[in-house]
Amino acid sequence: MAPSLLGGAARTRGAVLDLIRAARTVSRVELAARLGLTAPAITQVVRDLIANDLVVEVGHGPSTGGKPPTLLQLNPQARYGVGVHLERNTCVVVVVDLAGSPVSRKTVPGAASMAPQRMLPIVASDIDSLLTASGVDRDKVVGVGLVTYGPQDWPTGLLLTPQPTPEWMGYPVAEQLTEILRLPVRLDNDANAAAIGEYWLGSVDPRSSYGCIYMATGIGGGVVVAGKVYRGSSSNCVEIGHVSLDVDGDPCTCGNRGCLESYAGPPAVIQQALATPELARRLHLDPHRTDVLADFARITTAASAGDPAARALIEQAARYLGHAAVTLTNLFDLDAIVLAGPSFGPAVAMYQRVIQAELDQRWFSRHAHPVRVLPSANGDDAAAIGGAVLVLQNELTWPS
Amino acid sequence: MAPSLLGGAARTRGAVLDLIRAARTVSRVELAARLGLTAPAITQVVRDLIANDLVVEVGHGPSTGGKPPTLLQLNPQARYGVGVHLERNTCVVVVVDLAGSPVSRKTVPGAASMAPQRMLPIVASDIDSLLTASGVDRDKVVGVGLVTYGPQDWPTGLLLTPQPTPEWMGYPVAEQLTEILRLPVRLDNDANAAAIGEYWLGSVDPRSSYGCIYMATGIGGGVVVAGKVYRGSSSNCVEIGHVSLDVDGDPCTCGNRGCLESYAGPPAVIQQALATPELARRLHLDPHRTDVLADFARITTAASAGDPAARALIEQAARYLGHAAVTLTNLFDLDAIVLAGPSFGPAVAMYQRVIQAELDQRWFSRHAHPVRVLPSANGDDAAAIGGAVLVLQNELTWPS
Repeated sequence: MAPSLLGGAARTRGAVLDLIRAARTVSRVELAARLGLTAPAITQVVRDLIANDLVVEVGHGPSTGGKPPTLLQLNPQARYGVGVHLERNTCVVVVVDLAGSPVSRKTVPGAASMAPQRMLPIVASDIDSLLTASGVDRDKVVGVGLVTYGPQDWPTGLLLTPQPTPEWMGYPVAEQLTEILRLPVRLDNDANAAAIGEYWLGSVDPRSSYGCIYMATGIGGGVVVAGKVYRGSSSNCVEIGHVSLDVDGDPCTCGNRGCLESYAGPPAVIQQALATPELARRLHLDPHRTDVLADFARITTAASAGDPAARALIEQAARYLGHAAVTLTNLFDLDAIVLAGPSFGPAVAMYQRVIQAELDQRWFSRHAHPVRVLPSANGDDAAAIGGAVLVLQNELTWPS
Repeated sequence: MAPSLLGGAARTRGAVLDLIRAARTVSRVELAARLGLTAPAITQVVRDLIANDLVVEVGHGPSTGGKPPTLLQLNPQARYGVGVHLERNTCVVVVVDLAGSPVSRKTVPGAASMAPQRMLPIVASDIDSLLTASGVDRDKVVGVGLVTYGPQDWPTGLLLTPQPTPEWMGYPVAEQLTEILRLPVRLDNDANAAAIGEYWLGSVDPRSSYGCIYMATGIGGGVVVAGKVYRGSSSNCVEIGHVSLDVDGDPCTCGNRGCLESYAGPPAVIQQALATPELARRLHLDPHRTDVLADFARITTAASAGDPAARALIEQAARYLGHAAVTLTNLFDLDAIVLAGPSFGPAVAMYQRVIQAELDQRWFSRHAHPVRVLPSANGDDAAAIGGAVLVLQNELTWPS
């Protein structure tokens, strides 16, 4: 047999570990069969994983004639990842174990109008204090996934946006936070992170191709194919919020016209609600307030409680999202679309129903297979959890 | 070193062969360095490729101190692929050598309204006669790439469309043609084929992510990432012709509204030209004729010759295509977009300029990197050549 390409050993080890993780318990015989490896090869890889404390033996499975097989399981406490979802208003920090389960979390104030030089030491100290409070040994932390908006220079960990202040543009956030924390830090965008979190936590078929629509203040997207985030040229994808719904629509700050965000993004829907004075009064919407997430939550809460005007607004926004989801699916050919992020909130079932109906009627290859619309398994923390999962995945299973 | 996953040997061999193909001439030392393999490993793989006549030694490169290195080159006559681009009006058959260069081609009448039971034996005999005429040994033909429209059941080689006649819907075209020809046949869509043809023939950087817009009667798309066609769930992508430009637009036969094809597809532009009687008369457009490609060619020819009315129509169509190209790029993050297919014709430079301008102004991450718009290197036969390349690639380098 010819030798594998560079990284073959690490790739094999990663594939074995990922399969043990996904299967929860599995025997060496099953691993060998599913990965097409010989028994001695599996024995060697598993010995190495056990020596590194990543995998443990947990009793025996049913005999298939001979000696009952020893079952293997991930040791969730072997390693941890930290996820930080940094936004203008809030910053969520989570610690996630090797199985992808959050072991602790906290929400702290966001970047507001602070420059990165001031904000990053605060983030570092929030991470340190959460690790201490949760009793996680720092030596077991493989790294930090810092998740925020794009565009980004993903390989080098720079932001290419002057949000929230001009100092962030081009600032080496990943490198600086690495230096302060003495832990590897990877930068990524919220929607990519939320998308991979769904894979790791098992709410979608691991072999499938699926998209994630992530809605907080803006609307982002991510696509995962066979367990890996689709990156394109520079990982500045999948910008579903800037899919145009109207070639002659209003100009968007991005340079395009008629972007989805300007029809269905929370700030746009809040403006639509403010245009109905009675609804604005009923929901205590204040045109001078800047807390988009809180105002939008009032609308989604009212819609899901049956307020007809709020419901009409959310259903219309969901149709626009559904229209963009059809374009996403016509281009990427997906099995599923996951709705993630805090802004779906209590109206997630309403969005799910409307977007599903749009796809069922309109996506191009609906006679080839259906596309399922699902709520995220990871709730409001999907992006932060995903950030931690990206670090675990990158260090342990699929170096990207 | 741990063993590689199943297929590691074939993957290594494929990677070496693809690198020799792309490099044109290369030494064993360079191969080892670029693939991260040891010298003995490369020696073994290359010995096998030479024994199979796929690679030949062609003299020596410059010495870097010691013995001058022996250079390796692909043996283009070692294997051939056949590409068939089957459409309603025409059927293009090409024979392509291992280097991706067409060695012979012919155009025969398309499927018209024939059922597959009648058409496939005709295609088989066209392939046989072209192979005979071009003196290619049938034993050296690795297979046939049959390229046509979608949707398709790609893994099994079925069409999921009743075009051109209802009998084609669900008919096992790949299996039946395999049986008649006694050669492996793979079904794919025209835009995916055209896209991979660009990779193999070197008009784009092989490490890049790029899209292809393929325009014949309809408008299709394909995306290639690091040398592989993006397939999504079922390879029913990338349907750029059904990107909606207007959420409230006219219904399309696909079920969606405001699709790009209904603004910028050749039949739509011909309708726009017919609405200007003077232009229709000048170009001899006949509302009762059904040869879309010929009528559209009259418009693109007039536009490129400076006819103001024709030019205005094509520039407007190009802006619509540019708008969809922005959506494609916002979702896939591409380095380049290749324009392929017969309908760009003599107006390809006009399309290229307008689409480039749209991308330069509107794509979301334009501050991260530019997106280049290029004409196809493979001319009107891009889809047929790509079909042959897909078969060569699949059999020899990257089994998919």
